[in-house]
Amino acid sequence: MIIVLKPQATQEVIDHVIERIEALGFTPHLSQGVARTIIGVIGDEDKLQAEPLQAIAGVEQVVPILKPYKLASREFHGEASVFDIKGIKVGGGHLMMIAGPCAIESEPLLVEIAGKVREAGANVLRGGAFKPRTSPYSFQGLGEDGLKMLKATGERFGMPVVTEVMDPRQIELVERYTDLFQIGARNMQNFDLLKEVGKTRIPVLLKRGMSATVKDLLMSAEYVLAQGNRRVILCERGVRTFEDSTRNTLDLSIVPNVKGLSHLPIIVDPSHATGRPDLIPAMSLAGVAAGSDGIHIEVHSCPEKALSDGPQALLPVQYAQLMEELRQLAQLLGKTIDACEGVTV
Amino acid sequence: MIIVLKPQATQEVIDHVIERIEALGFTPHLSQGVARTIIGVIGDEDKLQAEPLQAIAGVEQVVPILKPYKLASREFHGEASVFDIKGIKVGGGHLMMIAGPCAIESEPLLVEIAGKVREAGANVLRGGAFKPRTSPYSFQGLGEDGLKMLKATGERFGMPVVTEVMDPRQIELVERYTDLFQIGARNMQNFDLLKEVGKTRIPVLLKRGMSATVKDLLMSAEYVLAQGNRRVILCERGVRTFEDSTRNTLDLSIVPNVKGLSHLPIIVDPSHATGRPDLIPAMSLAGVAAGSDGIHIEVHSCPEKALSDGPQALLPVQYAQLMEELRQLAQLLGKTIDACEGVTV
Amino acid sequence: MIIVLKPQATQEVIDHVIERIEALGFTPHLSQGVARTIIGVIGDEDKLQAEPLQAIAGVEQVVPILKPYKLASREFHGEASVFDIKGIKVGGGHLMMIAGPCAIESEPLLVEIAGKVREAGANVLRGGAFKPRTSPYSFQGLGEDGLKMLKATGERFGMPVVTEVMDPRQIELVERYTDLFQIGARNMQNFDLLKEVGKTRIPVLLKRGMSATVKDLLMSAEYVLAQGNRRVILCERGVRTFEDSTRNTLDLSIVPNVKGLSHLPIIVDPSHATGRPDLIPAMSLAGVAAGSDGIHIEVHSCPEKALSDGPQALLPVQYAQLMEELRQLAQLLGKTIDACEGVTV
Amino acid sequence: MIIVLKPQATQEVIDHVIERIEALGFTPHLSQGVARTIIGVIGDEDKLQAEPLQAIAGVEQVVPILKPYKLASREFHGEASVFDIKGIKVGGGHLMMIAGPCAIESEPLLVEIAGKVREAGANVLRGGAFKPRTSPYSFQGLGEDGLKMLKATGERFGMPVVTEVMDPRQIELVERYTDLFQIGARNMQNFDLLKEVGKTRIPVLLKRGMSATVKDLLMSAEYVLAQGNRRVILCERGVRTFEDSTRNTLDLSIVPNVKGLSHLPIIVDPSHATGRPDLIPAMSLAGVAAGSDGIHIEVHSCPEKALSDGPQALLPVQYAQLMEELRQLAQLLGKTIDACEGVTV
Repeated sequence: MIIVLKPQATQEVIDHVIERIEALGFTPHLSQGVARTIIGVIGDEDKLQAEPLQAIAGVEQVVPILKPYKLASREFHGEASVFDIKGIKVGGGHLMMIAGPCAIESEPLLVEIAGKVREAGANVLRGGAFKPRTSPYSFQGLGEDGLKMLKATGERFGMPVVTEVMDPRQIELVERYTDLFQIGARNMQNFDLLKEVGKTRIPVLLKRGMSATVKDLLMSAEYVLAQGNRRVILCERGVRTFEDSTRNTLDLSIVPNVKGLSHLPIIVDPSHATGRPDLIPAMSLAGVAAGSDGIHIEVHSCPEKALSDGPQALLPVQYAQLMEELRQLAQLLGKTIDACEGVTV
Repeated sequence: MIIVLKPQATQEVIDHVIERIEALGFTPHLSQGVARTIIGVIGDEDKLQAEPLQAIAGVEQVVPILKPYKLASREFHGEASVFDIKGIKVGGGHLMMIAGPCAIESEPLLVEIAGKVREAGANVLRGGAFKPRTSPYSFQGLGEDGLKMLKATGERFGMPVVTEVMDPRQIELVERYTDLFQIGARNMQNFDLLKEVGKTRIPVLLKRGMSATVKDLLMSAEYVLAQGNRRVILCERGVRTFEDSTRNTLDLSIVPNVKGLSHLPIIVDPSHATGRPDLIPAMSLAGVAAGSDGIHIEVHSCPEKALSDGPQALLPVQYAQLMEELRQLAQLLGKTIDACEGVTV
Repeated sequence: MIIVLKPQATQEVIDHVIERIEALGFTPHLSQGVARTIIGVIGDEDKLQAEPLQAIAGVEQVVPILKPYKLASREFHGEASVFDIKGIKVGGGHLMMIAGPCAIESEPLLVEIAGKVREAGANVLRGGAFKPRTSPYSFQGLGEDGLKMLKATGERFGMPVVTEVMDPRQIELVERYTDLFQIGARNMQNFDLLKEVGKTRIPVLLKRGMSATVKDLLMSAEYVLAQGNRRVILCERGVRTFEDSTRNTLDLSIVPNVKGLSHLPIIVDPSHATGRPDLIPAMSLAGVAAGSDGIHIEVHSCPEKALSDGPQALLPVQYAQLMEELRQLAQLLGKTIDACEGVTV
Repeated sequence: MIIVLKPQATQEVIDHVIERIEALGFTPHLSQGVARTIIGVIGDEDKLQAEPLQAIAGVEQVVPILKPYKLASREFHGEASVFDIKGIKVGGGHLMMIAGPCAIESEPLLVEIAGKVREAGANVLRGGAFKPRTSPYSFQGLGEDGLKMLKATGERFGMPVVTEVMDPRQIELVERYTDLFQIGARNMQNFDLLKEVGKTRIPVLLKRGMSATVKDLLMSAEYVLAQGNRRVILCERGVRTFEDSTRNTLDLSIVPNVKGLSHLPIIVDPSHATGRPDLIPAMSLAGVAAGSDGIHIEVHSCPEKALSDGPQALLPVQYAQLMEELRQLAQLLGKTIDACEGVTV
């Protein structure tokens, strides 16, 4: 850590800062230039970053040198992590293709959509039973009934399933039905929820918050990892900007950025990022080309009757065509899309 | 609600849209211009906004006319709401002056700070017992021990107290100790948490999320109100932008904006918004001048040793000087700062 | 255009709005619902959008129906435009691969870089002679001397050249040396400059402003097109957001978005968008996968000695490797990268 | 400047960085910690910041210590600057109250508005003769005819006048008619324009760009100052964010922020920032309370017929009422609003 003092810092100020650093058990290295005095601080940077050194009078700037996350970092785990979710791998060249309706509405509809996306090559089935809706008057999900439908349908088609958990009190319930917890964008910094899913052994799909930096996202992953759950899959789903012609702005640069900083897999969700079916195919291809470890897409047989987020869903036929293009691109890039096994559709 | 069809919409498309609208129980009003066909839809707009009309083929744009929140709106409640928190009023010309440390660290320290801010004119005491920290390795708060200190200190000085609740499972506990729940910015769209505080009769200080629009904020308030808890106080604490010289960007225009749209009081938190003690006084004055119903400021006797957010805290002496200026401004604007009663400090 | 009146609009207000609309030569269509009165306005929407109808007392909202740009729109020109810049096509399946140093520093260095990027497959050479630098104390470019070097080097390698023009007074000069004008992001709404390049017959590479929406970008293109210059190539180069680990945030969704709204080609510049060589290859591949009509990359033989933007430049060897991957991707997608002809390198 | 090397930097890398620093004429100070090697660089930081040290292999991060602007800084000029524009002072406790129509439309209208705002206490008259409009089909201003009307009207009422200049070729013309050049937000980084106004002796009102940081704004001021024109007045007029209920987001924290960093006066423009007359009064009061050196407001006698930006204009009667409140606030804060002299209105 580097501490830059204000111009004309008196000897008294310098002495106070040094005394404070030493009192905390660190070693200060003084370096006096013409315009500024700089103090390098050697010691456990984790502890240092927790100290409010910025608040010391006479300090102009505190520059951290090390990253604040550890278990999520490349330095901690050099190789790209590969996770196996009931036979479907993600990371290290394996693409996880998640598809399904935004909300679970009924078992027949879920079966219909699941059958079609599996046939098209999806290898994980999604469906929401607890829905975080902006309006308290919107459909809030089927709850446990929905979870049962999801589990049954996943088993029918040999597909692992993923569903969102929003409340620490739901974890025990959802854990019985899902193969992968989704933490939604609005809960990316719901730290109690992160700690609780961290205590389970169900892997976690952690979506980036609408205004989270890459560092924030990795810190949230660290919350889960620090509890002992080592399987976190990150997900880019768009951030909030001034651009109003798309629902959010998909930030694909986070994909190679995360790959440099972390060993965790990262997938891309163009459905929530754009909110526009006409842009989803291009953004899915771009996501895979950017190095994403998978694509998350909402599919509905009849978007105009969907109970949640219909306007952003692809039709099954559009999804099948897109998967055809994604498969070719994956092949060119040497990536694998694992197939669901053991079940005749 | 207005539905704009794509150019060259065929009669078949028009018929389908009309049929769909009628099937939902609404009345369509067709209006065909040269370039576009427009369909006005008359009926319960709440129900309409829940329908994915945007997903119907041939639809270019769906324009909602009414606001999606009701209980929070000025149309529902014409007068500005005034809430009384243990004798301290907020709204309708009464300013709530919240001050205290970011985190409760020890009882002597809390008592020291509380005594000083009360003397300076603060009328609500704040202190965090559960802290939402970006890093899992940072100080996470004293929990129930902290709550006990807060309650005792509040009673000692005759000050109502406010503290953050982060997890639905904490509500029963926190309710026993606090006079006002704080919902932090990171939990503004933690809908289960909102519902749970909505079921209590403790008023709620709802902080704006880092990338929440004014509409999002009012929708989150609606979640609380819809459960029967009618006392929600909004709080602007800065939004995320590209500007990197302040922690966030304080959006004071939300103050008069909310006053036009809603009857709920709104206060301003320049501590979290700027993260810089040198900017807090000017932004506090600006907040009151903008029409804010109160100011929330973090104060610490020794910021350089604070366990949380020290660098943004004011010293008690700085707070006292600022309160002197705020009092004069409040007087000019005809506003009242209620004093805590019944206790000799 | 649709005009929504405020709730409880009196008959007097309604009459005034109708009178005003008729006075402007348009036809109002009244439609009165329970909660709101809505007035559809039929007529030349271009003229309508220029009128301050929002300012009429009693008007709550004015909703434009048609897009404010014409010559740039798909409705004006259904087919994707293909432009030929000295034998190199862009648009309609042809990719323009622009490469070269940020600033022209000397003829030998430019020749060295040009030779290498041409060999790697670049088909347009870039180089700045007038540099828009944030600091007045930074290198501002070689001016006409630089332009001469650029033209000579382009001719030597059979490559068309592109260079930035910043000032209407430079246009006559730059026009003598360049095959393509670049309008930089900072000048995207320098309307006098846009008008002046619109009067020439040199095609224009128009970069998106740092906080420009897709609509703003197309409106700026319209400024050029309206003067008679029909060859505008758009360029996405990142927008400003809260994310601070990249220089800007590359918004690739603008690529398919523009393709739906406009016939103009659009290319992607990952160098300025990310500012990080480690992210440029992934973002270039993603750009082509998203449907971009070309890629713009800065290349320098010795980034650590570059006079401008060195830290974001690729080395020639990195560029060659990336071009190899881009070629394969282009082939898969059925796209062509035109080769420079007639010159032995 | 501090250079942080990547982890496991070899001796070879360290030697190369040191050699490079010495070759540039600077003195390196090596400091090796457990996790990172850090090199402090002593010397002329201006020159250093122009060097692409970030591009050297093995360098992880380059941390500048000094600010990149000089003439604009508080360190260069400790006292707040006070400028006198034809008898009206701005800065150091003097508030400049600019008012007038967005565009000059006709002399009678301008005279009518000028008379009213002067009577209300405005001390500078604004009016646009060259208008930067998003659409090429919108009213572009009256040009020199408008300038003549502005000068005549200013003289009639004893008010200095301000008008926008958009193109270096207009400067000679505009200089003959105006007392203060306005550089609009879209041209804040039009560096050629900045240099040209910097060569004149007419003071400059420099508006913050829509996505400019405070540092960017001060660097643009530096462009003007570096040419010898020492009178630059900054202006906050809102930045672009995700919030869509206001035209832009007014960032008032830039006011005290600039006052800490620079000696230059800064005023606030709530008209362009909010785009909403209902928010302008509250934001004007907040601006003055935040320490602004003036307020810029658009006023029009008949907003619904204005040729430019009518929907955001205040009526003269609204402006008069607001000025009454601003005067009281100014008095409380010990600020002066200079009155125009020598003319009977």
